[in-house]
Amino acid sequence: MTTAEARLTELGLELPPAPGAVAAYEPWAISGNMIYTSGQLPWRDGKTLLFKGRIGAELTPEQGYEACRLSTLNAIAQLKAALGDLERVHRIVRVEGSLNVAPGSGDMTPKVLNGASDVINAVFGERGRHTRMIYTTPDLPLNAACLVVLWAEIG
Amino acid sequence: MTTAEARLTELGLELPPAPGAVAAYEPWAISGNMIYTSGQLPWRDGKTLLFKGRIGAELTPEQGYEACRLSTLNAIAQLKAALGDLERVHRIVRVEGSLNVAPGSGDMTPKVLNGASDVINAVFGERGRHTRMIYTTPDLPLNAACLVVLWAEIG
Amino acid sequence: MTTAEARLTELGLELPPAPGAVAAYEPWAISGNMIYTSGQLPWRDGKTLLFKGRIGAELTPEQGYEACRLSTLNAIAQLKAALGDLERVHRIVRVEGSLNVAPGSGDMTPKVLNGASDVINAVFGERGRHTRMIYTTPDLPLNAACLVVLWAEIG
Repeated sequence: MTTAEARLTELGLELPPAPGAVAAYEPWAISGNMIYTSGQLPWRDGKTLLFKGRIGAELTPEQGYEACRLSTLNAIAQLKAALGDLERVHRIVRVEGSLNVAPGSGDMTPKVLNGASDVINAVFGERGRHTRMIYTTPDLPLNAACLVVLWAEIG
Repeated sequence: MTTAEARLTELGLELPPAPGAVAAYEPWAISGNMIYTSGQLPWRDGKTLLFKGRIGAELTPEQGYEACRLSTLNAIAQLKAALGDLERVHRIVRVEGSLNVAPGSGDMTPKVLNGASDVINAVFGERGRHTRMIYTTPDLPLNAACLVVLWAEIG
Repeated sequence: MTTAEARLTELGLELPPAPGAVAAYEPWAISGNMIYTSGQLPWRDGKTLLFKGRIGAELTPEQGYEACRLSTLNAIAQLKAALGDLERVHRIVRVEGSLNVAPGSGDMTPKVLNGASDVINAVFGERGRHTRMIYTTPDLPLNAACLVVLWAEIG
């Protein structure tokens, strides 16, 4: 079985440093055998927020997809920071994605949020099979394109 | 004790076929003694999306109520598909409802989301006593009127 | 160790009566060693809804902060009503905050939702270290400024 770290390497992906929270909360919490991240923004390196604006206006759907992928890499970086080893992830249980969209852009949002789902499926394989809830809004913190939360069952 | 299936029959309700996900995720996941569905749209038969548009503009509050009820029947269909028997549901723990609303239509939304709560209470009785979180937005995937998630404790 | 009740007193805060749900659901549910509240509005006394309107338009960010703090006191009141004693709270696992915002007001929202996080950190100390998900919307039930949910691990 290929490890999640090996798959990241195969995919040419590097985890960004796990970013701190932008306000008075924690980036992740473990309770029992579950870990929950806070909402993750599309930080490139914990300092530069890529993808600002609304999908369908300032940003294309393709950029929205990339933003979701990047937020998710930040969320995976939180799992790594919390657990030490991504092999402790037994299952990604849920992905929550909030998308900053222009009016009338709802139709495209499931494909945009696949930027999160595709990278999870690629990195975690069978263990990445997740449920999903999507939120759409005309305003997000720091005017970011998206915010992604992961829940994972851990061992 | 009346079973959930018997109550559905008494209410003249039929579960639609459990719809597949509209993108790269799973319709439900079990972790420990909890099952979580993904966001469920108001599909009539897994193929026809009823209730497109914004509640308070293209759709009336009554249509919004019906949309929430239909999305919830789809969510119950996911529980059935996952568990085989709805009697394995010990408790509906949480309902999440996202409503597609016209500007200024927030006031009516708790009653609209009762379309989800009422059918859960009717079908599951005491076991249906649930918490609820409501989300309101001017845009939803596929321009649907609503999206409903269920969490249930199972045995 | 100072109790949560003692900290509330030190802070000059009084829990409002735990408000009933505004529709066909329950204000809280316990499943295993977790308690989840429903979305809590900024009720002063279970009857008067303070802070109606959009943050960034009818309400200032400071009023939004106060609204989040008040909704959170209502959520803590639910924990007390459910558990009898706040010392049964081992950990606040997650805060969900939905903010009613004027267009273009996303930037300020993390600070506004600190109205929830700050009071939790002050009341629960180490046990209050929580993850957070923020939702922004131009419409909320009853035109309230915010809606707050707490998840807590209990013993």
